[in-house]
Amino acid sequence: MASPPDGAQAQDLREHTLSSEELLRGHFLHAFRDQVRLPDGRQASREYVRHPGAVVIVAELDDGRYVVERQWRHPLQRVLIEFPAGKLDAGEDLLACARRELQEETGYRANQWAYAGPMHPVIAYSTEVIHIFFARGLQAGERALDEGEFLDVFAASLDELLAWSRDGLLTDGKTLSCLLWAQNVRAGTWALRWSDAG
Amino acid sequence: MASPPDGAQAQDLREHTLSSEELLRGHFLHAFRDQVRLPDGRQASREYVRHPGAVVIVAELDDGRYVVERQWRHPLQRVLIEFPAGKLDAGEDLLACARRELQEETGYRANQWAYAGPMHPVIAYSTEVIHIFFARGLQAGERALDEGEFLDVFAASLDELLAWSRDGLLTDGKTLSCLLWAQNVRAGTWALRWSDAG
Repeated sequence: MASPPDGAQAQDLREHTLSSEELLRGHFLHAFRDQVRLPDGRQASREYVRHPGAVVIVAELDDGRYVVERQWRHPLQRVLIEFPAGKLDAGEDLLACARRELQEETGYRANQWAYAGPMHPVIAYSTEVIHIFFARGLQAGERALDEGEFLDVFAASLDELLAWSRDGLLTDGKTLSCLLWAQNVRAGTWALRWSDAG
Repeated sequence: MASPPDGAQAQDLREHTLSSEELLRGHFLHAFRDQVRLPDGRQASREYVRHPGAVVIVAELDDGRYVVERQWRHPLQRVLIEFPAGKLDAGEDLLACARRELQEETGYRANQWAYAGPMHPVIAYSTEVIHIFFARGLQAGERALDEGEFLDVFAASLDELLAWSRDGLLTDGKTLSCLLWAQNVRAGTWALRWSDAG
Protein backbone atom coordinates (compact mmCIF):
# COMPACT_ATOMS: atom_id res chain seq x y z
CA MET A 1 0.00 0.00 0.00
CA ALA A 2 1.47 3.33 -1.05
CA SER A 3 1.42 6.32 1.25
CA PRO A 4 -0.29 9.41 -0.07
CA PRO A 5 2.10 11.61 -2.04
CA ASP A 6 3.48 14.21 0.31
CA GLY A 7 5.24 17.52 -0.02
CA ALA A 8 8.55 15.87 -0.77
CA GLN A 9 7.29 14.60 -4.12
CA ALA A 10 4.84 17.37 -4.79
CA GLN A 11 5.02 21.06 -5.46
CA ASP A 12 5.06 23.18 -2.31
CA LEU A 13 1.39 23.99 -1.76
CA ARG A 14 1.80 25.81 1.53
CA GLU A 15 0.41 29.31 2.03
CA HIS A 16 2.13 31.60 4.52
CA THR A 17 0.01 33.77 6.77
CA LEU A 18 0.96 37.45 6.63
CA SER A 19 -1.77 38.94 8.84
CA SER A 20 -5.07 38.03 10.46
CA GLU A 21 -8.12 40.19 11.12
CA GLU A 22 -11.21 39.35 13.16
CA LEU A 23 -14.30 39.85 10.99
CA LEU A 24 -17.07 38.78 13.32
CA ARG A 25 -17.49 37.74 16.92
CA GLY A 26 -21.04 36.49 17.12
CA HIS A 27 -22.75 34.45 19.80
CA PHE A 28 -21.62 31.37 17.87
CA LEU A 29 -19.75 32.36 14.70
CA HIS A 30 -16.21 33.65 15.09
CA ALA A 31 -14.85 34.66 11.69
CA PHE A 32 -11.47 35.81 10.45
CA ARG A 33 -9.86 37.09 7.27
CA ASP A 34 -6.20 36.27 6.84
CA GLN A 35 -3.84 37.61 4.23
CA VAL A 36 -1.64 34.85 2.86
CA ARG A 37 1.32 34.59 0.53
CA LEU A 38 0.64 32.04 -2.18
CA PRO A 39 3.19 29.53 -3.52
CA ASP A 40 3.83 31.88 -6.50
CA GLY A 41 4.58 34.83 -4.21
CA ARG A 42 1.33 36.66 -4.80
CA GLN A 43 -1.12 37.47 -2.02
CA ALA A 44 -4.70 36.36 -1.39
CA SER A 45 -7.23 36.61 1.43
CA ARG A 46 -8.76 33.59 3.18
CA GLU A 47 -11.95 33.90 5.23
CA TYR A 48 -12.96 31.21 7.69
CA VAL A 49 -14.73 30.40 10.94
CA ARG A 50 -12.87 29.32 14.06
CA HIS A 51 -14.58 26.39 15.74
CA PRO A 52 -13.73 24.66 19.04
CA GLY A 53 -14.01 21.15 17.56
CA ALA A 54 -16.63 18.51 18.17
CA VAL A 55 -17.32 14.83 18.67
CA VAL A 56 -19.80 12.46 17.04
CA ILE A 57 -20.80 9.12 18.54
CA VAL A 58 -21.68 5.88 16.73
CA ALA A 59 -23.47 4.12 19.57
CA GLU A 60 -24.45 0.49 18.99
CA LEU A 61 -27.32 -1.11 20.88
CA ASP A 62 -27.13 -4.76 21.98
CA ASP A 63 -29.43 -5.70 19.08
CA GLY A 64 -26.94 -4.23 16.58
CA ARG A 65 -28.94 -1.11 15.75
CA TYR A 66 -27.45 2.37 16.14
CA VAL A 67 -28.73 5.33 18.14
CA VAL A 68 -29.65 8.19 15.80
CA GLU A 69 -31.42 11.51 16.06
CA ARG A 70 -33.77 13.67 14.09
CA GLN A 71 -33.06 17.37 14.61
CA TRP A 72 -34.28 20.57 12.97
CA ARG A 73 -31.33 22.34 11.37
CA HIS A 74 -32.17 25.96 10.82
CA PRO A 75 -29.63 26.75 8.04
CA LEU A 76 -31.17 23.99 5.92
CA GLN A 77 -34.77 24.57 7.06
CA ARG A 78 -35.35 20.88 7.54
CA VAL A 79 -35.05 17.95 9.91
CA LEU A 80 -31.93 15.83 9.36
CA ILE A 81 -31.00 12.36 10.56
CA GLU A 82 -27.65 12.32 12.33
CA PHE A 83 -25.57 10.52 14.89
CA PRO A 84 -25.39 12.25 18.30
CA ALA A 85 -22.75 14.98 18.29
CA GLY A 86 -21.71 18.13 20.07
CA LYS A 87 -19.06 20.77 20.49
CA LEU A 88 -16.11 20.50 22.83
CA ASP A 89 -16.19 22.69 25.89
CA ALA A 90 -13.02 24.71 26.49
CA GLY A 91 -10.25 22.35 27.61
CA GLU A 92 -12.54 19.33 27.58
CA ASP A 93 -11.10 15.85 27.00
CA LEU A 94 -12.40 14.25 23.79
CA LEU A 95 -13.76 11.12 25.43
CA ALA A 96 -15.30 13.10 28.27
CA CYS A 97 -17.08 15.20 25.66
CA ALA A 98 -18.31 12.11 23.81
CA ARG A 99 -19.68 10.57 27.03
CA ARG A 100 -21.34 13.84 28.01
CA GLU A 101 -22.95 14.45 24.62
CA LEU A 102 -24.23 10.89 24.29
CA GLN A 103 -25.82 11.05 27.72
CA GLU A 104 -27.21 14.58 27.39
CA GLU A 105 -28.75 14.03 23.97
CA THR A 106 -29.87 10.39 24.20
CA GLY A 107 -29.72 9.36 27.87
CA TYR A 108 -27.42 6.43 27.06
CA ARG A 109 -24.24 5.54 28.95
CA ALA A 110 -21.77 3.15 27.36
CA ASN A 111 -19.57 0.43 28.90
CA GLN A 112 -17.02 0.51 26.11
CA TRP A 113 -15.60 3.21 23.90
CA ALA A 114 -13.34 3.31 20.87
CA TYR A 115 -11.81 6.31 19.11
CA ALA A 116 -12.03 5.92 15.33
CA GLY A 117 -10.39 9.13 14.10
CA PRO A 118 -10.88 12.75 13.10
CA MET A 119 -12.80 14.16 10.14
CA HIS A 120 -12.91 17.72 8.81
CA PRO A 121 -16.42 18.69 7.73
CA VAL A 122 -15.70 21.96 5.95
CA ILE A 123 -12.10 22.37 4.97
CA ALA A 124 -12.63 25.47 2.82
CA TYR A 125 -13.91 27.80 5.52
CA SER A 126 -13.80 26.38 9.05
CA THR A 127 -11.19 25.06 11.46
CA GLU A 128 -13.71 22.50 12.70
CA VAL A 129 -12.57 18.94 13.37
CA ILE A 130 -15.07 16.26 14.44
CA HIS A 131 -13.69 13.30 16.37
CA ILE A 132 -15.50 10.04 15.63
CA PHE A 133 -16.16 7.72 18.58
CA PHE A 134 -17.84 4.33 18.75
CA ALA A 135 -19.72 3.22 21.88
CA ARG A 136 -21.27 -0.10 22.93
CA GLY A 137 -22.65 -1.76 26.03
CA LEU A 138 -25.37 0.88 26.28
CA GLN A 139 -27.67 1.47 29.23
CA ALA A 140 -30.64 3.76 28.78
CA GLY A 141 -31.18 6.66 31.16
CA GLU A 142 -32.53 10.16 31.36
CA ARG A 143 -31.39 12.69 28.83
CA ALA A 144 -30.60 16.32 29.66
CA LEU A 145 -30.87 18.48 26.57
CA ASP A 146 -29.30 21.90 26.38
CA GLU A 147 -31.72 24.79 26.62
CA GLY A 148 -33.18 25.42 23.17
CA GLU A 149 -32.24 21.93 21.96
CA PHE A 150 -35.04 19.72 20.60
CA LEU A 151 -34.41 16.36 19.03
CA ASP A 152 -35.92 12.90 18.66
CA VAL A 153 -33.88 9.80 19.43
CA PHE A 154 -34.54 6.52 17.64
CA ALA A 155 -32.73 3.33 16.62
CA ALA A 156 -31.92 2.21 13.09
CA SER A 157 -30.07 -0.72 11.59
CA LEU A 158 -26.95 -0.28 9.49
CA ASP A 159 -28.92 -1.49 6.46
CA GLU A 160 -31.57 1.17 7.06
CA LEU A 161 -29.00 3.94 7.50
CA LEU A 162 -27.17 2.90 4.34
CA ALA A 163 -30.41 2.70 2.35
CA TRP A 164 -31.42 6.19 3.53
CA SER A 165 -27.97 7.46 2.52
CA ARG A 166 -28.26 5.90 -0.93
CA ASP A 167 -31.77 7.35 -1.34
CA GLY A 168 -30.89 10.90 -0.29
CA LEU A 169 -32.84 10.73 2.99
CA LEU A 170 -29.66 10.87 5.09
CA THR A 171 -27.33 13.62 3.89
CA ASP A 172 -25.42 14.85 6.95
CA GLY A 173 -21.71 14.72 6.15
CA LYS A 174 -20.44 13.70 9.59
CA THR A 175 -23.01 10.89 9.70
CA LEU A 176 -22.04 9.68 6.21
CA SER A 177 -18.39 9.68 7.31
CA CYS A 178 -19.37 7.63 10.36
CA LEU A 179 -21.27 5.20 8.15
CA LEU A 180 -18.12 4.58 6.11
CA TRP A 181 -16.55 3.60 9.43
CA ALA A 182 -19.53 1.55 10.58
CA GLN A 183 -19.80 -0.37 7.33
CA ASN A 184 -16.12 -1.28 7.33
CA VAL A 185 -16.04 -2.11 11.04
CA ARG A 186 -19.11 -4.32 10.65
CA ALA A 187 -17.50 -6.03 7.65
CA GLY A 188 -14.38 -6.70 9.72
CA THR A 189 -12.09 -4.79 7.35
CA TRP A 190 -11.44 -1.87 9.74
CA ALA A 191 -10.60 -2.54 13.40
CA LEU A 192 -11.44 -0.50 16.49
CA ARG A 193 -9.53 -0.57 19.76
CA TRP A 194 -12.13 -0.78 22.50
CA SER A 195 -11.54 0.38 26.07
CA ASP A 196 -13.72 -0.17 29.11
CA ALA A 197 -15.32 2.98 30.45
CA GLY A 198 -13.68 4.04 33.71
CA MET B 1 -37.05 -1.51 4.82
CA ALA B 2 -38.66 1.08 7.10
CA SER B 3 -38.73 4.75 6.17
CA PRO B 4 -37.07 7.11 8.61
CA PRO B 5 -39.51 8.33 11.29
CA ASP B 6 -40.98 11.59 10.07
CA GLY B 7 -42.82 14.48 11.64
CA ALA B 8 -46.09 12.56 11.73
CA GLN B 9 -44.75 10.15 14.35
CA ALA B 10 -42.35 12.53 16.03
CA GLN B 11 -42.64 15.69 18.06
CA ASP B 12 -42.76 18.84 15.97
CA LEU B 13 -39.12 19.89 15.80
CA ARG B 14 -39.59 22.84 13.46
CA GLU B 15 -38.29 26.28 14.39
CA HIS B 16 -40.09 29.31 12.98
CA THR B 17 -38.03 32.24 11.77
CA LEU B 18 -39.07 35.56 13.32
CA SER B 19 -36.40 37.85 11.88
CA SER B 20 -33.06 37.74 10.05
CA GLU B 21 -30.08 40.08 10.31
CA GLU B 22 -26.97 40.16 8.13
CA LEU B 23 -23.89 39.86 10.34
CA LEU B 24 -21.12 39.84 7.77
CA ARG B 25 -20.68 40.30 4.05
CA GLY B 26 -17.10 39.32 3.40
CA HIS B 27 -15.36 38.52 0.15
CA PHE B 28 -16.40 34.90 0.72
CA LEU B 29 -18.26 34.53 4.03
CA HIS B 30 -21.84 35.79 4.14
CA ALA B 31 -23.20 35.36 7.66
CA PHE B 32 -26.61 35.85 9.24
CA ARG B 33 -28.25 35.77 12.64
CA ASP B 34 -31.88 34.73 12.71
CA GLN B 35 -34.26 34.88 15.62
CA VAL B 36 -36.39 31.75 15.79
CA ARG B 37 -39.34 30.54 17.83
CA LEU B 38 -38.57 27.15 19.33
CA PRO B 39 -41.05 24.25 19.59
CA ASP B 40 -41.74 25.23 23.23
CA GLY B 41 -42.59 28.82 22.26
CA ARG B 42 -39.37 30.37 23.54
CA GLN B 43 -36.95 32.24 21.30
CA ALA B 44 -33.34 31.59 20.31
CA SER B 45 -30.84 32.96 17.82
CA ARG B 46 -29.24 30.91 15.04
CA GLU B 47 -26.07 32.07 13.30
CA TYR B 48 -25.01 30.58 10.00
CA VAL B 49 -23.23 31.15 6.71
CA ARG B 50 -25.06 31.33 3.39
CA HIS B 51 -23.30 29.32 0.71
CA PRO B 52 -24.10 28.99 -3.02
CA GLY B 53 -23.72 25.19 -3.01
CA ALA B 54 -21.04 23.06 -4.58
CA VAL B 55 -20.25 19.89 -6.47
CA VAL B 56 -17.73 17.12 -5.88
CA ILE B 57 -16.64 14.67 -8.57
CA VAL B 58 -15.67 11.01 -8.16
CA ALA B 59 -13.85 10.55 -11.45
CA GLU B 60 -12.79 7.01 -12.32
CA LEU B 61 -9.89 6.34 -14.68
CA ASP B 62 -9.99 3.41 -17.11
CA ASP B 63 -7.65 1.47 -14.79
CA GLY B 64 -10.17 1.78 -11.93
CA ARG B 65 -8.23 4.39 -9.95
CA TYR B 66 -9.81 7.70 -8.95
CA VAL B 67 -8.61 11.23 -9.63
CA VAL B 68 -7.76 12.98 -6.37
CA GLU B 69 -6.08 16.20 -5.29
CA ARG B 70 -3.77 17.48 -2.63
CA GLN B 71 -4.58 21.05 -1.67
CA TRP B 72 -3.44 23.40 1.10
CA ARG B 73 -6.42 24.31 3.25
CA HIS B 74 -5.66 27.45 5.18
CA PRO B 75 -8.22 27.04 8.02
CA LEU B 76 -6.60 23.71 8.93
CA GLN B 77 -3.02 24.77 8.11
CA ARG B 78 -2.33 21.59 6.22
CA VAL B 79 -2.58 19.81 2.90
CA LEU B 80 -5.64 17.58 2.55
CA ILE B 81 -6.49 14.81 0.10
CA GLU B 82 -9.83 15.38 -1.56
CA PHE B 83 -11.89 14.67 -4.63
CA PRO B 84 -12.14 17.58 -7.10
CA ALA B 85 -14.84 20.02 -6.04
CA GLY B 86 -15.96 23.57 -6.45
CA LYS B 87 -18.68 26.11 -5.83
CA LEU B 88 -21.65 26.71 -8.10
CA ASP B 89 -21.63 29.91 -10.06
CA ALA B 90 -24.86 31.91 -9.86
CA GLY B 91 -27.57 30.11 -11.82
CA GLU B 92 -25.20 27.39 -12.95
CA ASP B 93 -26.55 23.92 -13.78
CA LEU B 94 -25.19 21.23 -11.44
CA LEU B 95 -23.76 19.01 -14.16
CA ALA B 96 -22.29 21.99 -15.99
CA CYS B 97 -20.53 22.95 -12.76
CA ALA B 98 -19.23 19.41 -12.26
CA ARG B 99 -17.84 19.28 -15.81
CA ARG B 100 -16.28 22.73 -15.44
CA GLU B 101 -14.67 22.01 -12.07
CA LEU B 102 -13.29 18.65 -13.15
CA GLN B 103 -11.73 20.17 -16.22
CA GLU B 104 -10.44 23.32 -14.54
CA GLU B 105 -8.85 21.52 -11.60
CA THR B 106 -7.64 18.29 -13.22
CA GLY B 107 -7.80 18.77 -17.00
CA TYR B 108 -10.01 15.71 -17.41
CA ARG B 109 -13.16 15.54 -19.51
CA ALA B 110 -15.58 12.64 -19.00
CA ASN B 111 -17.71 10.69 -21.48
CA GLN B 112 -20.24 9.61 -18.91
CA TRP B 113 -21.72 11.21 -15.83
CA ALA B 114 -23.97 10.04 -13.00
CA TYR B 115 -25.57 12.07 -10.22
CA ALA B 116 -25.31 10.25 -6.89
CA GLY B 117 -27.02 12.67 -4.52
CA PRO B 118 -26.61 15.63 -2.19
CA MET B 119 -24.73 15.83 1.09
CA HIS B 120 -24.70 18.59 3.71
CA PRO B 121 -21.21 19.15 5.09
CA VAL B 122 -21.99 21.44 8.00
CA ILE B 123 -25.62 21.34 9.05
CA ALA B 124 -25.15 23.38 12.24
CA TYR B 125 -23.95 26.61 10.67
CA SER B 126 -24.04 26.68 6.86
CA THR B 127 -26.61 26.34 4.12
CA GLU B 128 -24.05 24.53 2.00
CA VAL B 129 -25.09 21.49 -0.02
CA ILE B 130 -22.52 19.50 -2.04
CA HIS B 131 -23.84 17.50 -4.98
CA ILE B 132 -21.94 14.24 -5.55
CA PHE B 133 -21.25 13.28 -9.17
CA PHE B 134 -19.48 10.27 -10.64
CA ALA B 135 -17.60 10.52 -13.94
CA ARG B 136 -15.95 7.92 -16.19
CA GLY B 137 -14.58 7.63 -19.69
CA LEU B 138 -11.91 10.23 -18.87
CA GLN B 139 -9.64 11.99 -21.36
CA ALA B 140 -6.73 13.99 -20.04
CA GLY B 141 -6.29 17.61 -21.08
CA GLU B 142 -5.03 20.96 -19.90
CA ARG B 143 -6.22 22.25 -16.58
CA ALA B 144 -7.12 25.89 -15.94
CA LEU B 145 -6.87 26.69 -12.25
CA ASP B 146 -8.54 29.73 -10.75
CA GLU B 147 -6.20 32.54 -9.81
CA GLY B 148 -4.73 31.80 -6.41
CA GLU B 149 -5.56 28.10 -6.65
CA PHE B 150 -2.70 25.61 -6.26
CA LEU B 151 -3.24 21.88 -6.13
CA ASP B 152 -1.63 18.59 -7.12
CA VAL B 153 -3.59 15.99 -9.05
CA PHE B 154 -2.84 12.30 -8.70
CA ALA B 155 -4.57 8.92 -8.99
CA ALA B 156 -5.34 6.47 -6.19
CA SER B 157 -7.10 3.15 -5.96
CA LEU B 158 -10.22 2.65 -3.86
CA ASP B 159 -8.22 0.42 -1.54
CA GLU B 160 -5.62 3.16 -1.05
CA LEU B 161 -8.26 5.83 -0.39
CA LEU B 162 -10.04 3.58 2.11
CA ALA B 163 -6.80 2.71 3.88
CA TRP B 164 -5.87 6.40 4.16
CA SER B 165 -9.36 7.10 5.57
CA ARG B 166 -9.00 4.32 8.15
CA ASP B 167 -5.54 5.58 9.11
CA GLY B 168 -6.50 9.25 9.52
CA LEU B 169 -4.57 10.41 6.45
CA LEU B 170 -7.75 11.28 4.55
CA THR B 171 -10.15 13.29 6.71
CA ASP B 172 -12.11 15.55 4.36
CA GLY B 173 -15.82 15.03 5.04
CA LYS B 174 -17.06 15.38 1.46
CA THR B 175 -14.43 12.92 0.29
CA LEU B 176 -15.35 10.42 3.02
CA SER B 177 -19.00 10.74 1.99
CA CYS B 178 -17.98 10.09 -1.62
CA LEU B 179 -16.01 7.03 -0.52
CA LEU B 180 -19.15 5.58 1.10
CA TRP B 181 -20.72 5.94 -2.34
CA ALA B 182 -17.68 4.57 -4.19
CA GLN B 183 -17.37 1.54 -1.92
CA ASN B 184 -21.01 0.60 -2.34
CA VAL B 185 -21.09 1.30 -6.07
CA ARG B 186 -17.96 -0.80 -6.55
CA ALA B 187 -19.52 -3.60 -4.47
CA GLY B 188 -22.62 -3.49 -6.65
CA THR B 189 -24.95 -2.71 -3.74
CA TRP B 190 -25.68 0.90 -4.80
CA ALA B 191 -26.52 1.69 -8.42
CA LEU B 192 -25.75 4.79 -10.46
CA ARG B 193 -27.68 5.94 -13.53
CA TRP B 194 -25.06 6.89 -16.12
CA SER B 195 -25.73 9.34 -18.96
CA ASP B 196 -23.55 10.07 -21.94
CA ALA B 197 -22.03 13.53 -21.92
CA GLY B 198 -23.78 15.74 -24.48
